[in-house]
Amino acid sequence: MTDIKKKKQVDRNRAIDPAVLDILARELPVDTAYDRYLAQQPQCKFGDTGICCRICIQGPCRITPKAPRGVCGATAYTIVARNLVRSVTGGASAHSDHAKHILLTLKALLEGHAPDYSIKSSEKLHAVAERFEIPIVGRADMEILADVVALAMEDFTRMGSGKVKWIEKTVTPGRVEKFNDCNIMPTSVFEAIASATAQTHVGMDADPVNLIFKALATSLADYTGMHIGTDMSDILFGVPKPVYTEANMGVINPTKVNIAVHGHNPLLSEMIVLAARELDDEAKEAGAEGIQLMGICCTGNEVLMRQGVPPVTNFMSQELPIMTGAIDAMVVDLQCIMPGIQTAAECYNTRIVTTSENAKIPGAHHIDFNSEENALEQAKDVIRIGIDGFRERVGSECSIPDIKNKVVAGFSQEALYELFSAINPEAPIKVLTDALKSGELRGVVLLCGCNNLKVKHDESHIVIAQELAKNDVLLLATGCAAGSYAKLGLLSSEAVDMYAGDGLKAFINRLNEANADNLEGKLPLIFHMGSCVDNSRSTNLATAIANDLGVDIPKIPFAASAPEAMSEKAIAIGSWNVAMGLPVHVGVVPPVTGSELVNGVALQIAHDVYGGYFMWETDPQLAAQKLLEALDYRSWKLKVHEQTAEKFGVTASTAW
Amino acid sequence: MTDIKKKKQVDRNRAIDPAVLDILARELPVDTAYDRYLAQQPQCKFGDTGICCRICIQGPCRITPKAPRGVCGATAYTIVARNLVRSVTGGASAHSDHAKHILLTLKALLEGHAPDYSIKSSEKLHAVAERFEIPIVGRADMEILADVVALAMEDFTRMGSGKVKWIEKTVTPGRVEKFNDCNIMPTSVFEAIASATAQTHVGMDADPVNLIFKALATSLADYTGMHIGTDMSDILFGVPKPVYTEANMGVINPTKVNIAVHGHNPLLSEMIVLAARELDDEAKEAGAEGIQLMGICCTGNEVLMRQGVPPVTNFMSQELPIMTGAIDAMVVDLQCIMPGIQTAAECYNTRIVTTSENAKIPGAHHIDFNSEENALEQAKDVIRIGIDGFRERVGSECSIPDIKNKVVAGFSQEALYELFSAINPEAPIKVLTDALKSGELRGVVLLCGCNNLKVKHDESHIVIAQELAKNDVLLLATGCAAGSYAKLGLLSSEAVDMYAGDGLKAFINRLNEANADNLEGKLPLIFHMGSCVDNSRSTNLATAIANDLGVDIPKIPFAASAPEAMSEKAIAIGSWNVAMGLPVHVGVVPPVTGSELVNGVALQIAHDVYGGYFMWETDPQLAAQKLLEALDYRSWKLKVHEQTAEKFGVTASTAW
Repeated sequence: MTDIKKKKQVDRNRAIDPAVLDILARELPVDTAYDRYLAQQPQCKFGDTGICCRICIQGPCRITPKAPRGVCGATAYTIVARNLVRSVTGGASAHSDHAKHILLTLKALLEGHAPDYSIKSSEKLHAVAERFEIPIVGRADMEILADVVALAMEDFTRMGSGKVKWIEKTVTPGRVEKFNDCNIMPTSVFEAIASATAQTHVGMDADPVNLIFKALATSLADYTGMHIGTDMSDILFGVPKPVYTEANMGVINPTKVNIAVHGHNPLLSEMIVLAARELDDEAKEAGAEGIQLMGICCTGNEVLMRQGVPPVTNFMSQELPIMTGAIDAMVVDLQCIMPGIQTAAECYNTRIVTTSENAKIPGAHHIDFNSEENALEQAKDVIRIGIDGFRERVGSECSIPDIKNKVVAGFSQEALYELFSAINPEAPIKVLTDALKSGELRGVVLLCGCNNLKVKHDESHIVIAQELAKNDVLLLATGCAAGSYAKLGLLSSEAVDMYAGDGLKAFINRLNEANADNLEGKLPLIFHMGSCVDNSRSTNLATAIANDLGVDIPKIPFAASAPEAMSEKAIAIGSWNVAMGLPVHVGVVPPVTGSELVNGVALQIAHDVYGGYFMWETDPQLAAQKLLEALDYRSWKLKVHEQTAEKFGVTASTAW
Repeated sequence: MTDIKKKKQVDRNRAIDPAVLDILARELPVDTAYDRYLAQQPQCKFGDTGICCRICIQGPCRITPKAPRGVCGATAYTIVARNLVRSVTGGASAHSDHAKHILLTLKALLEGHAPDYSIKSSEKLHAVAERFEIPIVGRADMEILADVVALAMEDFTRMGSGKVKWIEKTVTPGRVEKFNDCNIMPTSVFEAIASATAQTHVGMDADPVNLIFKALATSLADYTGMHIGTDMSDILFGVPKPVYTEANMGVINPTKVNIAVHGHNPLLSEMIVLAARELDDEAKEAGAEGIQLMGICCTGNEVLMRQGVPPVTNFMSQELPIMTGAIDAMVVDLQCIMPGIQTAAECYNTRIVTTSENAKIPGAHHIDFNSEENALEQAKDVIRIGIDGFRERVGSECSIPDIKNKVVAGFSQEALYELFSAINPEAPIKVLTDALKSGELRGVVLLCGCNNLKVKHDESHIVIAQELAKNDVLLLATGCAAGSYAKLGLLSSEAVDMYAGDGLKAFINRLNEANADNLEGKLPLIFHMGSCVDNSRSTNLATAIANDLGVDIPKIPFAASAPEAMSEKAIAIGSWNVAMGLPVHVGVVPPVTGSELVNGVALQIAHDVYGGYFMWETDPQLAAQKLLEALDYRSWKLKVHEQTAEKFGVTASTAW
């Protein structure tokens, strides 16, 4: 190998996952994202700091000392804030699109047009209905579902007046009041998206604070879409409960038909799991030992959480399983699907199957997936494409990194409550709040977000988690963060022994002991709550903690961290977590630093108004320290308040 | 003056309007858009050609020979197409936001909460109701209005299934079929905006053709918003009919309270016109001779069309009237409001009054205009701010370019039909189609769009209009194009004598003669149809021509030209005009040339599918030639078809 080639390979090894490094070390016939990232260097500093405006075609305008304003007179703060609003809107639209498809499938189910779907969790349906005071007693589930779906659709389409019910009924009373007072409570998901886009048109809002508030309002529309998405998925496919499997590229089985499901939406992938079971014999007829399904990105998380399908890798490395030569088909649905997978697939024996009319890739197979008519049949078509791929692959070389780790996942809020109930059946949440009050746990942190090659792939996720675990922080994970932990062994009980501090270890072991009869195996270090659309599960837990402690969310030792945030969805999620009152660490610096004002609002002023705030920190060790400080500060204040309350004989909620 | 200062002033004189040049020639205490445009040179070529992607924060990614793909693997065609979809979405959101506010005011009127508004045009209400087969006979207008508003709101909020009624009932049957066949008929305005934004999220659609079709679907949502906006404005404020006034900076009267209304939405400006009449005495008490209202941009067009308020200038030069020293207040509503006006105002005696909660400018006065409660009172507050300004201004220097031109405007489709009816009361449209068939007129061209300093301000508008007029093209105008013509004398009957070819002159004079008793004065060279939101009026005319000729729009000699397109709204309007089947000239090159494929679709493939297509041409003489060729080609084909039809004894519509 030439020195230049070697140099290139060293440079592109921006990863810590040994399976990823194994493949990147090879001489590959095609570029990967790791190569393309290097080719894109240096990246434009104007875009990177948010001070490039392309909103009208008199631009691009870029803020420089020589040109401190755009043609229209917009300054850095206006440009940065507008770009931020548009990013959050992109995220909100993506999540709402996801939820919309599930809602429309439920609607079709109600109308008798979705024969392959059914209500899988009557309990969840009832729980959601009760939340909105929809009558349950004496009613058939389909009747109840009709009311739930109608309400959700109203939350999407309301126009002009009214407020999103899904927010009003899922957050603390304090948050509802705050959102109303700050005028950021959206009327509906669709109106919020359209209005935010309009507000950032040329010659519209120039006021950065007004724009930032709009970003937060739109982020609450994002929360709405996400929460509806999770609730409806649970109703349709069941509420996740602990599952035991493995993760990383070692799950690829060269003697089986290997089919990867990738994207975000469970509508198709749940059918694929069914279809794979039904077509096992066909695979065997083709000479395979069976069908090996595996997940990538958040479709991977969906089928992991509910079906125990092993995750093969996460966002950043989505092209690499193809390069083992053993993936027969990769079926993709929506979001975070690199067009690069098709280029990779063309060099190997992989068939890329796109399935959404809104997410095609030139050159790929396309099946226009329609959940309403023949979902299962279409899923079978996909499987058969994989089987065809296997037939062609037989005898050709493949090289699979022999790396996999044990995984325990499936921790919906309901699953956590079930664990807690074994200790305190009357008030499960007190198992957690007592541990926080006693200091056994220093706090709770949601580890979430994507991958982003601006930092080393997976590294920040892992370092932060290990550091927080050592310091007795209860860890929740979603999305590609959870993907990192799955691949690298942190979703296992072994990781508890290796990384948990004494307090966290005692807490998890108490749960293990109390649930010894209920669980197949021991609990993991990090509790995987689902795909990125499931971040509302974490908020539900924070809300329960706050309500139990009689305070609002900004007072509880709970934080979020997105060490490798990449997508507009991540920006939207970060924004509503701030609005919810959480400290939110982001491990790459988002494009807001071009305006000191906007940056200052994100880092400081947000705290004064909402109690939540952002922390940009690219060093994972420092990030962990900052998260710990944020938790400790809140715990200390909670204690002071509690002592004050005791001293003066008032209830905590009055004092706090 | 130093040489450098002189050089700067020569460079910035990118204009042909003598009033603009007069002010730019002065030593000004503050930069104008003309200066800021120069300071922004050179502009980034990546953004300018559409090959910069900032959709995820792994970016910015820029396409170069060294880096032909973004980090995710997106190529130039994906990036260009995604950016295009987002631009069209920005435009659609702006127009729908505009329409939404009017709809919500009508809803408030129905509920008794908008006491200062009323139904001004019962005829228009009935016409709109009839279009949708809403019963009229025996019903009160408020009842009919309730149905119309409900239907319009459905077109905004429908989710999942169904189609936009406002499209189905306002275009040719051929277009409805085409939109359905090509799957670009939107379900609703809001869903289209949310779905297009989602489709362009990272890892979503990579297929440029699919994306371009999405851009067209979203542009039809833009058309919907615009058409609803125009219809509702006509119902609420009356259908425009010919008005006679003057335009350009000479309308500023130093002895009066000068108040400029600027933006797009007539909801406030109509109240301001009323308030100004009521507060004339207060102005006189303050020592003024009265109140001089004047318009800028499309709020200017709105109050010109319905109230005869003189336009003072258009988008590009919106800061310059302030620099006469004689503008006491500039009240702005929505869209195309440069933040630069506030900086300018701070150097003079002008008060900028922002009025929308979604369009604020730091430092400006802000009145949170609420059409539902006390609209007229709030308008009076604005006028009083102007009167206060006058009090402070008295005695200070002002210098107003003594330039103004006569204007005849107010040509809604209904107004044009009224003119035609004087010749052919049974079939008014035949006056126009007969002139097209006989060759008296070579075609019809809509002159529309914004200002953009990438070309000399106003020059292309004027050159193209003069060239087309000389060649007997009937000219319609909207938006800031119409602003150019108003300022520079082309909306006058004198311009007919100066610029019209024999055919056009004969056509206009025939209308003049037939309407001698109905009109206050003679007709102008160019027929001003309204603000940019009113472009649907032009489509209605094209639809009527096509229906009368028994063909679809792609066959009629009708084109559109946006010589100085600037905003996302313009991109959306251009896109739906292409979908409608029109040749659309754009005088600045939009950011699509970074992909040959996308550019090729815009210029050529669009023609094969939709009959309409784009022409980028920055030279106005060449642009006029290309427009004439497009018209002539269509006229020639029409004639061939007609002859064929006659020869074989079939009806034209069968032959065509």
